[in-house]
Amino acid sequence: MQLGPVDSTTSAFARQRTLALSDVTLRPGFWSKWQETNHKVSLRHGFEQLERFGNFNNLMLAAGKGEGEYARPVFMDSDVYKWLEAIGYELACNPDPELEKMADYAIGLVEAAQGEDGYLNSYWDVVEPDRRWADLDHGHELYCAGHLFQAAVAYVRATGDRRLLDVSIRFADYIDSVFGPGKRAGTPGHPEIEMALVELYRETGERRYLDLAVYFVDMRGQGVLHHNRFGGSAYYQDHAPVREQTTVEGHAVRQLYLTTGLADIYMETGEEALLDVLMQQWHNMVSRKLFITGGVGSQHSGEAFGEAYELPNERCYCETCAQIASIMWNWRMLLITGERRFADLIERTLYNGFLSGVSLDGRCYFYVNPLMSRGTEPLLGRKHIVRPAWHGCACCPPNVMRLLASLQHYLATTDERGLLIHQYAPAEIRTTAGDVAIAVRMETNFPWDGAVKFTVEEAGNWALRLRVPDWAASPAVTVTGGAASFTEADGYIVLERSWQAGDVVEMTVAMEPMLVEGHPRVDPTRNSVAIVRGPLVYCLEGVDQDAGVNLFDVEIDVNVPLSTSWNDDLLGGLVTVAGTGVVADPSGWQETLYRPISASSAAVKEATKLVAVPYYAWANRGANTMRVWIPRA
Amino acid sequence: MQLGPVDSTTSAFARQRTLALSDVTLRPGFWSKWQETNHKVSLRHGFEQLERFGNFNNLMLAAGKGEGEYARPVFMDSDVYKWLEAIGYELACNPDPELEKMADYAIGLVEAAQGEDGYLNSYWDVVEPDRRWADLDHGHELYCAGHLFQAAVAYVRATGDRRLLDVSIRFADYIDSVFGPGKRAGTPGHPEIEMALVELYRETGERRYLDLAVYFVDMRGQGVLHHNRFGGSAYYQDHAPVREQTTVEGHAVRQLYLTTGLADIYMETGEEALLDVLMQQWHNMVSRKLFITGGVGSQHSGEAFGEAYELPNERCYCETCAQIASIMWNWRMLLITGERRFADLIERTLYNGFLSGVSLDGRCYFYVNPLMSRGTEPLLGRKHIVRPAWHGCACCPPNVMRLLASLQHYLATTDERGLLIHQYAPAEIRTTAGDVAIAVRMETNFPWDGAVKFTVEEAGNWALRLRVPDWAASPAVTVTGGAASFTEADGYIVLERSWQAGDVVEMTVAMEPMLVEGHPRVDPTRNSVAIVRGPLVYCLEGVDQDAGVNLFDVEIDVNVPLSTSWNDDLLGGLVTVAGTGVVADPSGWQETLYRPISASSAAVKEATKLVAVPYYAWANRGANTMRVWIPRA
Repeated sequence: MQLGPVDSTTSAFARQRTLALSDVTLRPGFWSKWQETNHKVSLRHGFEQLERFGNFNNLMLAAGKGEGEYARPVFMDSDVYKWLEAIGYELACNPDPELEKMADYAIGLVEAAQGEDGYLNSYWDVVEPDRRWADLDHGHELYCAGHLFQAAVAYVRATGDRRLLDVSIRFADYIDSVFGPGKRAGTPGHPEIEMALVELYRETGERRYLDLAVYFVDMRGQGVLHHNRFGGSAYYQDHAPVREQTTVEGHAVRQLYLTTGLADIYMETGEEALLDVLMQQWHNMVSRKLFITGGVGSQHSGEAFGEAYELPNERCYCETCAQIASIMWNWRMLLITGERRFADLIERTLYNGFLSGVSLDGRCYFYVNPLMSRGTEPLLGRKHIVRPAWHGCACCPPNVMRLLASLQHYLATTDERGLLIHQYAPAEIRTTAGDVAIAVRMETNFPWDGAVKFTVEEAGNWALRLRVPDWAASPAVTVTGGAASFTEADGYIVLERSWQAGDVVEMTVAMEPMLVEGHPRVDPTRNSVAIVRGPLVYCLEGVDQDAGVNLFDVEIDVNVPLSTSWNDDLLGGLVTVAGTGVVADPSGWQETLYRPISASSAAVKEATKLVAVPYYAWANRGANTMRVWIPRA
Repeated sequence: MQLGPVDSTTSAFARQRTLALSDVTLRPGFWSKWQETNHKVSLRHGFEQLERFGNFNNLMLAAGKGEGEYARPVFMDSDVYKWLEAIGYELACNPDPELEKMADYAIGLVEAAQGEDGYLNSYWDVVEPDRRWADLDHGHELYCAGHLFQAAVAYVRATGDRRLLDVSIRFADYIDSVFGPGKRAGTPGHPEIEMALVELYRETGERRYLDLAVYFVDMRGQGVLHHNRFGGSAYYQDHAPVREQTTVEGHAVRQLYLTTGLADIYMETGEEALLDVLMQQWHNMVSRKLFITGGVGSQHSGEAFGEAYELPNERCYCETCAQIASIMWNWRMLLITGERRFADLIERTLYNGFLSGVSLDGRCYFYVNPLMSRGTEPLLGRKHIVRPAWHGCACCPPNVMRLLASLQHYLATTDERGLLIHQYAPAEIRTTAGDVAIAVRMETNFPWDGAVKFTVEEAGNWALRLRVPDWAASPAVTVTGGAASFTEADGYIVLERSWQAGDVVEMTVAMEPMLVEGHPRVDPTRNSVAIVRGPLVYCLEGVDQDAGVNLFDVEIDVNVPLSTSWNDDLLGGLVTVAGTGVVADPSGWQETLYRPISASSAAVKEATKLVAVPYYAWANRGANTMRVWIPRA
């Protein structure tokens, strides 16, 4: 039974149960292509980069072998762990001796790097051996430990191979001997270990790990961190006790790794105070601090959530890891509550702000995912215009890998009544809900087409629930060709009956392109619209427009209907959306930036066709201008 | 003859000559109040802060005295030098034994901290004595030296006291023995020494100092810096040879200190290639990278100029020092070319983006000067919402002090034909142009009122030229009560005649409030206007609006005329501008951030009066919301 990254099967306070990775098999379609590229290209690319950037050598140095200097930053080990976690998920479903060999090599390095006492961190071992735990703010020891534990759990679930788990248990026991009530006071400057300890508890049944996660959470806002950089305590969510934090603040990845850990703890302990703040923080995020792509993080400085409604297009941060963290958090919220809104946000984030983080060929990665790119003056920050092959701070690439490798985990859940489908993709699902065996085949051309067909492959009495996406009107549903009576509850269509093998359910949601506007308190979206179709946010890229058109002189006519067309040869195959607009000649501005409105003259405007591609596909054709938000003509 | 911060009296390639500080005496008015507060409050406040933050103690440590730890950052000495420079200017015009005593104390510390060989930098002396010049990128040794030289020149010009000048000459000679052709290759990671060396050359006549300035400029873009932080070489203008740099890039203060140094070099050498790039860089700045306040620097990360048209309201940087640097650069461009546009930008910057850097009481300073403030969620970055008394990186406060202390320097210049007035303020001017003695009294209520009266106090044949500000229509001019014939050349009204003592010239420019719009390629000003009146940019502060009005729901009706009123008791006395707008009820948004435009409903809008205050005066009444750009209703 190869479980996925979250095992809620025994969680007392989760309404829904996760399926094992091996219960869900992606079939050819949108996501299987990404997963296959991840498997065949990215994971091997990752091995090469970890070799090239010195991550493996760091572990060798810690084992007393290796040569040369330690390669920074301090959290280099975590990249290895995330990459191993991704391989674990792949091996659960797609055996691959070559990948297994690479992983075995890395696991051997990890084992050898562990100290006698269980401590494991190559940076502190090699560079500052006398200063273990001396810099909880920025030392990342507990953060790296968390990624190790997650890799270990993924790996043992996938393969039964306990090597990383044994390493993790030794390290967790050591950490537990150092930190806790009556021991050393501490909490990580970068959350991550909290969710990992809960998962380690789920895997081992060892309650101490859950207690340690709770301890680290309890110690936030107690003055054990030092606040010496990046603008103070909110940077790492240490500005107040966790149960008094009602907004998302500071470093976005830190914040969302923490919320994810809190949700994991709630699933096991049922502490209402935690769920209360999670709900408040979620509301704060989606109503004040969320980009239309599902991206989060408005400030480059401190990689931070900004102020309420501070959502810049050009200098948004939207770190790929923050979107991954948002998906992890929302998944747990969905398990806890069963509420559609969390699955909606997962969908929005997966298809847009997350997926833009990786190139179509699986070899290049964005750290920052802007909503606008001037594309043309890359003296600073070129890495935000085209995806580099790797990063000096390479948290994102292996994070993308582990999510893509475990994508099937996020499609469906079960509860006592049956099966719930949250994301639509061609897949085969074989699982059980209570005592009932469930087998369903899902066929769809999502996200290009809103029709989804389910074929029941095993008879049984259970409820099939299908999420109605927040962007969709009420869908049409038939069962085995005929109109079907169904109820709708909590945003899910409910079809509960005694299924026969061969029964077919067809659901169709309209997938028309539409124009979306931003809240008037958001400054840079004023008088602008974005094109959205189904789960996909679109963008204009300069390369697709009429020759000579400057994207930043373009305005869209919102009264002309948009049209769509399938393009087999474009960027791996996709639907483009075409609109009608004008290009405003800026020469009347005479090279000034500001002028009295009394001096305004009507700009000469020429009609132009506007062609939009899905946001995730941008920047796959070299440096290029791009914008998601388009001014209204 | 107490010269000011730039002495162009012997510069072969300057068209205009600077006046001595003592040639111009500010009389009671807008600027004299600021200068007086600076003298009476800020300079004393500076002494206390330099004591409190350890700058003085650092110098004592370098002298082998002092106690405790070195207080960072590495450029702490420069704060002392800028403060001394400011005192130098004050002592030139306003003797003050108490200030002189404070300065004497600091000068003594500086003298004692200098090494036998002439080297002087407390950080490298105390903390890393074996690593002099090892980190030209970020070590700031040459930067601190530059500020020392500027202070020394100011001090000797003001008082005849050569102590700092002797220290500077020893240090400059030492630097000259280290760097140069055939010696060590180097250039400063933070420009500043270039302009200082030129001024040291002007003061001492020692040509080697000018040559060394040219050498440092020539070494940029030659690979002698290492580019190990902040996104590469453009951060400190090392991405290309200086003569190939046609745009302003990277760290804004570094860029503009460099341009200022280039202009100083041009004034002495006349090298056309330098003037060419200066003109191109200036055009790039004002047509692509300038905020309406005269502020520059769009990015918090790297404190940098951003891309073309990247001019965010909320997260602009607009470091106070960058505005000061812009004024220094534009002053030299004015001296070189005599073109009004440089004086226009000085005016815009002085009254707005520079002046917002200091509180009305002279005790608090902004480092960052945003154009919008949410004011209400200061978990990160509170220092951008209210001015702190000092900063951990305190470059700005003493920089403000030295500019305010030398403000009269920027009012007027001479050439062979007579006197040119660039900035309007009550003042007495006594100088010579060629052989002709000139004495003029200027009376005005600028910036509140556009009338300026000049009384000629000494007979003579010369030309009076008065800048017509770029925001003004053609002014009305009378001479001794009668209509005057005058020509207008290069944006200056020219009145050339044989003046009699008692002749009176009156010039009046209309000072109506007006609405200004931003270039359509600038994202966050879209469909918005700013209120401008004369040289002043206005802003809305929440505290001035009707109770309960959220500034971020406000829209302005651009068709209703604006009105003005004088407020004697408000913020030191100022003209407010009132407009008419609406408050749009955002509740129709149902706490969402994005919605299809098809779901738009007309928001309920209630009429409201909008009251604007000059931007410089914002944030003097506690944490508060503020916006310069107001959406159009």
